[in-house]
Amino acid sequence: MKNAAPYPISARGPADHDVRDQIVAAATEHFSRYGYEKTTVSDLAKAIGFSKAYIYKFFESKQAIGEMICANCLREIEGEVKAAVEEADRPPEKLRRMLKAIVEATLRLFSQDRKLYEIAASAATEHWQATIAYEERIQKLLQDILQEGRQSGDFERKTPLDETTMAIYLVMRPYLNPLILQHSFDYTVEAPAQLSSLVLRSLSP
Amino acid sequence: MKNAAPYPISARGPADHDVRDQIVAAATEHFSRYGYEKTTVSDLAKAIGFSKAYIYKFFESKQAIGEMICANCLREIEGEVKAAVEEADRPPEKLRRMLKAIVEATLRLFSQDRKLYEIAASAATEHWQATIAYEERIQKLLQDILQEGRQSGDFERKTPLDETTMAIYLVMRPYLNPLILQHSFDYTVEAPAQLSSLVLRSLSP
Repeated sequence: MKNAAPYPISARGPADHDVRDQIVAAATEHFSRYGYEKTTVSDLAKAIGFSKAYIYKFFESKQAIGEMICANCLREIEGEVKAAVEEADRPPEKLRRMLKAIVEATLRLFSQDRKLYEIAASAATEHWQATIAYEERIQKLLQDILQEGRQSGDFERKTPLDETTMAIYLVMRPYLNPLILQHSFDYTVEAPAQLSSLVLRSLSP
Repeated sequence: MKNAAPYPISARGPADHDVRDQIVAAATEHFSRYGYEKTTVSDLAKAIGFSKAYIYKFFESKQAIGEMICANCLREIEGEVKAAVEEADRPPEKLRRMLKAIVEATLRLFSQDRKLYEIAASAATEHWQATIAYEERIQKLLQDILQEGRQSGDFERKTPLDETTMAIYLVMRPYLNPLILQHSFDYTVEAPAQLSSLVLRSLSP
């Protein structure tokens, strides 16, 4: 983006976002075959048939491309989680669905596409912006459910909302973070139900 | 152990457990300087001044030595956790102390002795017996506190004890397991209190 700014739109040919999408799509394909860590921007340029300089007009680094892929990936997980939550009527069931969907979607990311998982792992280790933004959106979703449950009388209202949100987020976090999840495979079947029940007991009015 | 069995005690000179302790002490020293992964049994033998064959009389592999070191290490953490629990009078406070001590002791293992942490990490990844036994003892300690709290009227009794124990264990696990803890450094100050409060709310009668 930064590098693309000096070029007037009329001189660019295809719209910027099209080229960006094209680079991201090709990079996703390439990373998922050869791995994120091993691929350089030169490899990528060769594979797409662009010059390295041209790619740098749109992304300032490999990480910037990785961030975009990661953001897309996390958006997809978030979409699944939101859809699962919306299927439920009442806040307690929404919470259960939320935790279950998080575990399932993050597991799928890990098992279906090991190479993309590698990007997510770098993102989580290095605290990429895409990861931080994702974690904030998940916290927001959680807080909305809690708020709804307080209004409907399903959940207690004595504990400050921020405190409840953060504590439950900490319970969910090991299943949201792909780096942690890989050490919890033995628990992914049982954990969502057991932890949801514990959380719901903690919320009873 | 297996290999030591055929030798009659009288023919052995120093008692077996002395020699074993000596090997473990020397190996702890050596691993903590050069790392567990990089050290071979030959390196160890040279450093201690024993023959490789002699070491193999007492330990069937490097992992067997690592297991013993790891077991000692985990016993130490467990000792700290138990001491912290015993300082408290009532079950709710015992639970708080337990989680706090777990986080602190596991963090210390990680930060004070990075090389020993490496052994603990191998142990956790490969599900060594020492790790499994440790996890079971921690679960037992937790269950004892819960049982005491049920008897004293501090904790609810509706939920099956096994279910409550397992769910709270799952909440504690990310801070017990050194591989997971390393991805939770940002949360180690706040998490014990926040999670303890959540768990105690879930236990209210």
